[in-house]
Amino acid sequence: MMAFTNNNSSPWIQPESTHPQTGLVINNTLTKSKVPFIPRNGNNVSWYGCGPTVYDASHLGHARNYVTFDIIRRIMEDYLNYDVNMVMNITDIDDKIILRARQALLLSQYRQKATTLTQQIVDDVSLAFRGFVVSKLKEPINTENDWAAVVEKTGNGTDPKRVESDEKFPMNYKAASSTFAAISLAREQIASGKVSQAEAESLINAAKDVLELWLDGQYGAEVTDRQIFRDLAAYWEKDFFADMDALNVRRPNVLTRVSEFVPEIVRFVERIIDNGYAYEQDGSVYFDIDAFDGKNGNFYAKLEPKLKGNLKLQAEGEGALVAKTANKHNPADFALWKKSKPGEPRWDSPWGEGRPGWHIECSVMASEILGSNIDLHTGGIDLTFPHHDNEIAQSEACLGCSQWINYFMHAGHFHVGGMKMSKSLKNFTTIKEALTKHSARQLRILFLLSKWDSRLDYLPGTMDGPLAMEKTFDNFFSNTNALLRDFRLRQQESDGQRHFLEAELELQAALVDTKAQVHNALLDSFDTPKAMKALYEIVTRTNTYLQRGRASIDPQIVEMVGLYVTKIFRSFGLVIDGVGSRIGWGSGSADGGSEGVADRESILLPVATVLSDFRDAVRDIALSGGDKKALLELCDRVRDQDLPDLGIVIGDHGDGRALVKFVNPEEVRREREARQAEEEAKRAKKEASIRAAEEKRLAKLAAGKLAPEDMFRTPEMRELYSEWRENGIPTKDKAGEELAKSKVKKLEKLWAAQEKLHSEYLKSQDHYLQYSNIAARALRRVVKPQLQAEVAKRETVAIKYAKWDSGKAGVSTAVPIIETRAKVEN
Amino acid sequence: MMAFTNNNSSPWIQPESTHPQTGLVINNTLTKSKVPFIPRNGNNVSWYGCGPTVYDASHLGHARNYVTFDIIRRIMEDYLNYDVNMVMNITDIDDKIILRARQALLLSQYRQKATTLTQQIVDDVSLAFRGFVVSKLKEPINTENDWAAVVEKTGNGTDPKRVESDEKFPMNYKAASSTFAAISLAREQIASGKVSQAEAESLINAAKDVLELWLDGQYGAEVTDRQIFRDLAAYWEKDFFADMDALNVRRPNVLTRVSEFVPEIVRFVERIIDNGYAYEQDGSVYFDIDAFDGKNGNFYAKLEPKLKGNLKLQAEGEGALVAKTANKHNPADFALWKKSKPGEPRWDSPWGEGRPGWHIECSVMASEILGSNIDLHTGGIDLTFPHHDNEIAQSEACLGCSQWINYFMHAGHFHVGGMKMSKSLKNFTTIKEALTKHSARQLRILFLLSKWDSRLDYLPGTMDGPLAMEKTFDNFFSNTNALLRDFRLRQQESDGQRHFLEAELELQAALVDTKAQVHNALLDSFDTPKAMKALYEIVTRTNTYLQRGRASIDPQIVEMVGLYVTKIFRSFGLVIDGVGSRIGWGSGSADGGSEGVADRESILLPVATVLSDFRDAVRDIALSGGDKKALLELCDRVRDQDLPDLGIVIGDHGDGRALVKFVNPEEVRREREARQAEEEAKRAKKEASIRAAEEKRLAKLAAGKLAPEDMFRTPEMRELYSEWRENGIPTKDKAGEELAKSKVKKLEKLWAAQEKLHSEYLKSQDHYLQYSNIAARALRRVVKPQLQAEVAKRETVAIKYAKWDSGKAGVSTAVPIIETRAKVEN
Repeated sequence: MMAFTNNNSSPWIQPESTHPQTGLVINNTLTKSKVPFIPRNGNNVSWYGCGPTVYDASHLGHARNYVTFDIIRRIMEDYLNYDVNMVMNITDIDDKIILRARQALLLSQYRQKATTLTQQIVDDVSLAFRGFVVSKLKEPINTENDWAAVVEKTGNGTDPKRVESDEKFPMNYKAASSTFAAISLAREQIASGKVSQAEAESLINAAKDVLELWLDGQYGAEVTDRQIFRDLAAYWEKDFFADMDALNVRRPNVLTRVSEFVPEIVRFVERIIDNGYAYEQDGSVYFDIDAFDGKNGNFYAKLEPKLKGNLKLQAEGEGALVAKTANKHNPADFALWKKSKPGEPRWDSPWGEGRPGWHIECSVMASEILGSNIDLHTGGIDLTFPHHDNEIAQSEACLGCSQWINYFMHAGHFHVGGMKMSKSLKNFTTIKEALTKHSARQLRILFLLSKWDSRLDYLPGTMDGPLAMEKTFDNFFSNTNALLRDFRLRQQESDGQRHFLEAELELQAALVDTKAQVHNALLDSFDTPKAMKALYEIVTRTNTYLQRGRASIDPQIVEMVGLYVTKIFRSFGLVIDGVGSRIGWGSGSADGGSEGVADRESILLPVATVLSDFRDAVRDIALSGGDKKALLELCDRVRDQDLPDLGIVIGDHGDGRALVKFVNPEEVRREREARQAEEEAKRAKKEASIRAAEEKRLAKLAAGKLAPEDMFRTPEMRELYSEWRENGIPTKDKAGEELAKSKVKKLEKLWAAQEKLHSEYLKSQDHYLQYSNIAARALRRVVKPQLQAEVAKRETVAIKYAKWDSGKAGVSTAVPIIETRAKVEN
Repeated sequence: MMAFTNNNSSPWIQPESTHPQTGLVINNTLTKSKVPFIPRNGNNVSWYGCGPTVYDASHLGHARNYVTFDIIRRIMEDYLNYDVNMVMNITDIDDKIILRARQALLLSQYRQKATTLTQQIVDDVSLAFRGFVVSKLKEPINTENDWAAVVEKTGNGTDPKRVESDEKFPMNYKAASSTFAAISLAREQIASGKVSQAEAESLINAAKDVLELWLDGQYGAEVTDRQIFRDLAAYWEKDFFADMDALNVRRPNVLTRVSEFVPEIVRFVERIIDNGYAYEQDGSVYFDIDAFDGKNGNFYAKLEPKLKGNLKLQAEGEGALVAKTANKHNPADFALWKKSKPGEPRWDSPWGEGRPGWHIECSVMASEILGSNIDLHTGGIDLTFPHHDNEIAQSEACLGCSQWINYFMHAGHFHVGGMKMSKSLKNFTTIKEALTKHSARQLRILFLLSKWDSRLDYLPGTMDGPLAMEKTFDNFFSNTNALLRDFRLRQQESDGQRHFLEAELELQAALVDTKAQVHNALLDSFDTPKAMKALYEIVTRTNTYLQRGRASIDPQIVEMVGLYVTKIFRSFGLVIDGVGSRIGWGSGSADGGSEGVADRESILLPVATVLSDFRDAVRDIALSGGDKKALLELCDRVRDQDLPDLGIVIGDHGDGRALVKFVNPEEVRREREARQAEEEAKRAKKEASIRAAEEKRLAKLAAGKLAPEDMFRTPEMRELYSEWRENGIPTKDKAGEELAKSKVKKLEKLWAAQEKLHSEYLKSQDHYLQYSNIAARALRRVVKPQLQAEVAKRETVAIKYAKWDSGKAGVSTAVPIIETRAKVEN
């Protein structure tokens, strides 16, 4: 067990683990130094992060805080691979919420009634004004006219001493001054009879801050509708997460709301009382600092021991609605449970109706979800004292542990114009406003370029660095991607030359060095500025390499750099691809992750390529004169082939403008294949029927092969007849007897029929000679000499060819047909 | 320094590092045990993976090997966060490639000549058959008819003893048997005169394996075209990567091809000779095992010392084309450089024309890219001896290091039907075939469910487990996503109740436990089956929780499980979202909106619309005749306007092919606006200078407004003169005295000058009347009547008009100018 001691001697105990460690050290507010980060439970990290009090729009100061811890969380989860479980609270019970909700309600009611500018309104505002000047500016004026003296005394609100001693002075002075002017104007308007609703509205608007404070003092206690507090909190909670989403901040794993944990808070407070470290007083419960501090090994104010006695900070932590006259054991004792006065929301407790104090909520919710010993607790630097110190004291008082939180990290302030940006100082730029000027990525780069635990001063020109850096990376990414696409597209055949040579090996060595620099920087308490610098340098170096030109570079080394930079940027949250916030198999899967992940480029590339190729082709045709037919064919191919392959169907709709439709490319392919199969079947059927007709025709021709002159002179016929006419019709039978006339007539009929068949057959033979050049030439070569030789032989050969030719097919199909016939012939 | 010894006493030295370690242990073939994985250089891991010999389609055995190492690589890169640099080779010079390319060429030439079935063909096949039986089946037959005895002797090729002693026996028997049957059939066909090309084709097909071997023996040496080897390799390399892409296997960082490293190989071999560990013999160079082994602390066969003397395995490694009669020092000595015989590709070397041996390539390419001491070398288990043992020996012999590779990992075999699936056994299912039955994800789940270093037996039903598991995760993902969508949609107002209660805390604890199980399993030599089991169990448990019904669950805990499972699945390569293979900011647009997610259609629509509109316009132009200028303008507009608006830049690169680049559309817009502003400024400047010139001209015209006839009759002049000529030149002074002649002359000069000015003025007035129709008509309407009325008034009006007209503007700009005038006129 290692014990560290911070400058005020509260000991810090370094956790022990047998699990291998990453080597991460972090600046721990508990030691005010960098110490090894050792999670209690293997690779698991339990993390409680202070969330917002939801009563107003989030501003750049919040953005700095939440984006900074988002970066740290992503590095831990995605880069260092800790199994992080992060719990964040929403403070939805708080004096600020109560006041804001009541004031908004009362002001809106007052506004509704103010249909004309009346003396009563002016009197109300004047009263409110005087009260405001006394209470907020601490200037004891009696009448409005005393204001002139205040103006003079404070140099019209610019007195540096006043500003120094009260950071809210400028804001309050401005409110008072604007109200004074509005009252003067209103008096003139009444005098001159300009008293419409518009004038009333103007007065109320100018005096808003002053008036709503007064209204709340007058009527706040009469507000009984508890829903207004919930509604206000719900509205701003939703607004907060919309901002966080816009900033690409990962959601907490578990979100807890104070209003949902009141019974647990009551039990927690009871245990502290039972342990002797708290007491009830007039319906409220207070933590007993003196009973706790220094007793049983306890320390109060471990984070900021020097601020232990700071009653001002302690009072601010108590909220505006706390009982001012509480009879506390020690004036620094803080409320665990506040009795609710009229006009304040309330829950039952053993001490009567009331509500939780501010600090107690975090102690309870963190312990409920993450247990009694937590690895990491984070928040803004302004929360160290009293909020986190009180949290620690309460939790250790309740749970009886000596080290509730092992590591505390506090993000540095976001300053603007030399002052912390804050809601209560009203010097803020809302996140939404900021995002109209700069992208979430640009803001994140700004935060990455500052150390998380340092103050960030936002000055004119502060964004110049981040913007220039973004531009460099931007160019590098698009150049590299274009290069790689081109490389892959050509998927070049090897030219037999090695391309990964000295320059590439040097760049590879530089990349290895960069990786070590980045790794060590991130392990060194998340030194993102150093890591960004190393990434910037390797990219600059790669850009120099790229200037060698497309022919003499090896895209592989550039890809290595690109992939590495992207990997680190992903774990910085600069890459938007849903990693860590999406569930399921990823893109193209039907698991329904609403959000099939797909990056824009890889979706766009195929279509962009079709478009680019189409344009290239159109240009080529145009440059060679604009051939109409070629253009139309090109247009058809894009519609019928290229786009359907990508699941895009464009239909000509008559009006000259095609309609774009998206379909499943697989479906398109299947449909096309089915259509092709159908066409193929049709074609085969048609071919078969042509073939059948042809067979029939050929059978007929075969029957006509025998010349009528020979039909009665075949060997078989010679058995029947012994003499013939010249045309081959028999005249005498085998015995030498004349044939009967009727018999001859019959034979003549047969002869005539055969003659017809034979002449058709002969005609069909000529037919082949008329064919295409190739077929004709082949036939002439083979058939002609034989024709000259002998009729019978000629006919046999001719038949062979006939079988092949459908009489319709062109040259190309004529050839195989001829082969088939040769087989039949054998 | 820790030294391990494997069972044959070659020592293994555990690397040292001061860098924090992950705790990963891996089964190292060098020790045959699990040892801590300690990269030499901090977080960097140099990795050389044996790639494919590209001469045929990749099969499931390859899939198992490459997917398995892809899983391990992703776990190292994405889960354990090592900075991996992975080099893989393509073996594109190899005896198998030479033989395959030559045989394919010779067989195709033989086939082309075989237009009918001739006795010669039958005789060739018969000769080839007898040779095959003797050489491959080791059966000394003399005539075809001896085959019957072989059939009987081997139980028709099923003799278990034969199969046992020669794993290729079944394949070779099948080839011989099919050839024998085809020869018999062919003999019958010749006898019956059926000798067409079809019969020849049938015989050649049935005897393919036997015949091409014989043809290569006969004519292989005559093949001189080196391109056929490159073409074959290029074809199958492309095919291999298509398969790898389909299997979601990450590409290596650097791909090396043997053919690109021949000079480096020659130098490497020279160094081995110089070191005394190799010798030249008849144009080939051999590794001198006896000179190396046991000398100077060297060990030969570190991985498989027991196989050291295995001449059969060593001979297989040498390839089919190695010189059989080499006079080697030790018969186990292996070739570093092979002399090329006729018909083999060749490169220059100090030992004559030749080519690299198989093993040397990996030694050289690995060392060239990764240096002389490499963290990790991987490959299939069948590569241990002799390939990897020879690699180690060569490298250590050349580089003089005692441990070239610190960790060797060998993936288990993929068995089917009890035999290793392999190309040379021809018992394979190609990856493409496999992917028609199962998805890449399903195959990957199968591989995840086996230990990477175990044999995987593919049996009927082997896929049942992976499919059932996928289904469970599938359902879980879709249920969880639906639930979360619903939850976020309602973004429910808090109901004031805590929902993260006991059941949720229990599930959270189970998840923490699962994380530890998965983490420990992966650190334990990548025990993915154990990790998958743990994930399956937490999902099953979560499914049980989900059965409580929507009203009584907290979606946050379900989301935690879903995100964790997805995270691990991502590092297993089961999630397809481009992480690790894509460069850039991701899908989110520059404004960093939380969406980052965009569905395919909304991303595609704008580009598809540009394309469709472009096509419409091209068609219109084509249909109206193909106007060249219009087409080119259209092409320019697409490039300069339409696409940049969408963040797509296409650059003409001279070679007629545009390069597609993706950029930030916002950036493009800003740049264009800046350019336009600049142009606007230029234009304004030019306009101002035109305006100034015009003012000057008009001043001159104004001076000429006064007619010379009137110039001496103005009221002032009337004070000086009392009588005038008709043309207005004074003749007498006020007193009625004649003017002196010299005086008149002076006045006449003035008159003449004014006359000139005035005539210019009048001309300028006419000028307006000559303008375009519209302008002229408008002018006539307004100006003419006034001209007719009175000179002075006419002139005033005309001057008014003159002020607006630059005298250069065309019709369109003339109109507003006239309108303005009309207004002034009124």
